[in-house]
Amino acid sequence: MNHAALRTELHRLHLELPKNGLVTWTSGNISARVPDGDTGGMLIKPSGVTFEDLTPEGMVLTDLEARVLDSDLSPSSDTATHAYIYRHMPQVGGIVHTHSPYATAWAANARDIPCILTAQADEFGGPVPCGGFALIGGEEIGAEVVRVLTNHRSPAIILKSHGVFTIGPTPAKALKAAVMVEDVARTVFLAYQLAAATGGSVATLDPADIDKLYDRYTNVYGQRTSEVGK
Amino acid sequence: MNHAALRTELHRLHLELPKNGLVTWTSGNISARVPDGDTGGMLIKPSGVTFEDLTPEGMVLTDLEARVLDSDLSPSSDTATHAYIYRHMPQVGGIVHTHSPYATAWAANARDIPCILTAQADEFGGPVPCGGFALIGGEEIGAEVVRVLTNHRSPAIILKSHGVFTIGPTPAKALKAAVMVEDVARTVFLAYQLAAATGGSVATLDPADIDKLYDRYTNVYGQRTSEVGK
Amino acid sequence: MNHAALRTELHRLHLELPKNGLVTWTSGNISARVPDGDTGGMLIKPSGVTFEDLTPEGMVLTDLEARVLDSDLSPSSDTATHAYIYRHMPQVGGIVHTHSPYATAWAANARDIPCILTAQADEFGGPVPCGGFALIGGEEIGAEVVRVLTNHRSPAIILKSHGVFTIGPTPAKALKAAVMVEDVARTVFLAYQLAAATGGSVATLDPADIDKLYDRYTNVYGQRTSEVGK
Amino acid sequence: MNHAALRTELHRLHLELPKNGLVTWTSGNISARVPDGDTGGMLIKPSGVTFEDLTPEGMVLTDLEARVLDSDLSPSSDTATHAYIYRHMPQVGGIVHTHSPYATAWAANARDIPCILTAQADEFGGPVPCGGFALIGGEEIGAEVVRVLTNHRSPAIILKSHGVFTIGPTPAKALKAAVMVEDVARTVFLAYQLAAATGGSVATLDPADIDKLYDRYTNVYGQRTSEVGK
Repeated sequence: MNHAALRTELHRLHLELPKNGLVTWTSGNISARVPDGDTGGMLIKPSGVTFEDLTPEGMVLTDLEARVLDSDLSPSSDTATHAYIYRHMPQVGGIVHTHSPYATAWAANARDIPCILTAQADEFGGPVPCGGFALIGGEEIGAEVVRVLTNHRSPAIILKSHGVFTIGPTPAKALKAAVMVEDVARTVFLAYQLAAATGGSVATLDPADIDKLYDRYTNVYGQRTSEVGK
Repeated sequence: MNHAALRTELHRLHLELPKNGLVTWTSGNISARVPDGDTGGMLIKPSGVTFEDLTPEGMVLTDLEARVLDSDLSPSSDTATHAYIYRHMPQVGGIVHTHSPYATAWAANARDIPCILTAQADEFGGPVPCGGFALIGGEEIGAEVVRVLTNHRSPAIILKSHGVFTIGPTPAKALKAAVMVEDVARTVFLAYQLAAATGGSVATLDPADIDKLYDRYTNVYGQRTSEVGK
Repeated sequence: MNHAALRTELHRLHLELPKNGLVTWTSGNISARVPDGDTGGMLIKPSGVTFEDLTPEGMVLTDLEARVLDSDLSPSSDTATHAYIYRHMPQVGGIVHTHSPYATAWAANARDIPCILTAQADEFGGPVPCGGFALIGGEEIGAEVVRVLTNHRSPAIILKSHGVFTIGPTPAKALKAAVMVEDVARTVFLAYQLAAATGGSVATLDPADIDKLYDRYTNVYGQRTSEVGK
Repeated sequence: MNHAALRTELHRLHLELPKNGLVTWTSGNISARVPDGDTGGMLIKPSGVTFEDLTPEGMVLTDLEARVLDSDLSPSSDTATHAYIYRHMPQVGGIVHTHSPYATAWAANARDIPCILTAQADEFGGPVPCGGFALIGGEEIGAEVVRVLTNHRSPAIILKSHGVFTIGPTPAKALKAAVMVEDVARTVFLAYQLAAATGGSVATLDPADIDKLYDRYTNVYGQRTSEVGK
């Protein structure tokens, strides 16, 4: 994809965030790696702009040190985090950040989302990990994301007291992970509430079954030649 | 209905899934039995396609052994389950599968949804049963659905750690059951949460009243000549 | 209003039910008293028709014994209840029935919704009462609604294990009460959940303050000459 | 902004209230200070009008003693509260009032919303304070808002058994605070529910980190020259 097409795609994906209930007001952002050039770069949401006011042209181009290359707008205040992830995880082509409510409630408990649903085994291959607390502004958040997600099946991490980051080979796949992690966070939350209110318990999944489900979903699900989960 | 009309109807019904909050991203699917031919067949959602990208023409035609008859697209990864149900339950003309969140929370507790509401007695004639755990890929899920729903009043089953299957004489009626099971799962969940938080209790329904409500709803409710609950 | 205008208004009000999240599929209905004729009559939703398929012309005209006067469609299965209320409460001009989820969760606990919010004191003048269990089909539900709401401040009642009925001098005002009772049922539910989870407690309102709030809202709020809360 | 532009803006902002799920039926209102004239004045929502029926011209102009200056419509029944706040807090240019459900559930517990999320530290700089109970009609509510919010970081207050007031230098910024306080109230609620149901606990934020986050968000976030969070 050339820059113009990538800007259009990135704008379209941003509109999925409010549509799927993942963001409030100006929070949340998506970036796309721009592969050309010596060191590459990325396109990312401008800071503090509402989703209604976003445009393809307004997406901010930066290098992977988070320096603005070509824009009058300031980039997302999470730009340093995105840049750090792209520098350290070459397979990542897109990143999504949200404070989606159910996933953030798990993050506020500093607790992995346990893998108790087949849909969760499919998409995440196990629990969604919770990383430690890190302050915004420098490289701490990016470093925590990279530390936890490196060689991890899950494309999603929740960060203590903060929110969600998801990664993918493309921004569309990172978005899918952001949508699914909130869906899973909500249903698992409801399952624990129900167990507590009724004196019941949440059924666990056999780790061998989680492996089988993850393997099948990764290798069989979807269309061979089209963009899965576009 | 001929094939073309059935494809249009099946497409229309699929759009009701996101509209009613039953699905996330590409999850969930509906199939329709195609009555003609020696052994018959079915139309079903293609795998991993978003609801926005679905078309009537994209619905995949398979036989009742889940073999694709006429499509460049792969069918839903739940196709073997749908096929098994059609083979063993000749009265079934449509099947819906979702991971709708409240019903799935009950499934994660491996627990029937108790019948405590008149609307639930109307539609399901008693508790919504929870079947055992079964892995996707072979006939285990279909076998569990058939085992539990045969001669059962409920057109809906929840499957342990997984989600919902509903059946009906038509796909439209299976869809209605999928919508109603989530509605009931949510209100019954809220009723138990409320009882737990207030030190109260959920009132039970007399089984004789459940029978009366189910009988009346089945035989009196709706229009005699039009498609009820279209 | 003549019949045609009343049909148009009744159709418009029905569309507010799904828009405000009060109904699922074909459930829920509104009626309007038709004042002319010897004994009067009412217009009501046809049975088992989805909200999308409703039309002004499809509203069913019955007398106050629930006998269809002029329609090929069967009226709502709750018609006998509406008719009973109109016969026994001459000040009532409109009735709404729903299974809205939070109010129905209180009904499933067979429990009045306690008055702990100023907005609730405004609209309902105290707790929303919960009536006893009654089977559909005869006059039992109507009799219970009339018994409880006669000389009661609240225009809303919840019925054990069932759902909500609201009354008003016009269908629009009964609809407002149906919308507000669900809003109140939800916030009060959340307040009790929060208290239970945090070891806190829900603050009570002084009955004298409830009286002052109800009096002010009834006599001062809104526009003198326009249709308040249309 | 002249009066006409302010009316248009105020109308546009009102439509964000139902869109963001903060209001039900006719509840909730926004006002804008009108800076010209000797003592100034304000524009505010008319009382008891639905959001669909609002128009720019229908906004009611009053002085800061809450006397109507130019309108056939009665102003919001909360007008005296708004006027009191404008008189005592000269830096306030806009005020929003809602009964948004999660924030109101905290208010019904007479409890500050504890600051446990980075997004909350950003926007509110600490807990959202809960003020005491006050009756509508006179100056009690306004006095409580002014007492609590004077020299407080938070632009939002919840009032015991009642709801939310937010203030800002412009109505748009007060609206942003109203949207964010409900978002935060919900996620913090969910975090406590989750801890209670799982035997876990909600992680606290270090007060020094709250200060750093608040400082950064106030001074770095958003665009320097554009309207942030419009």
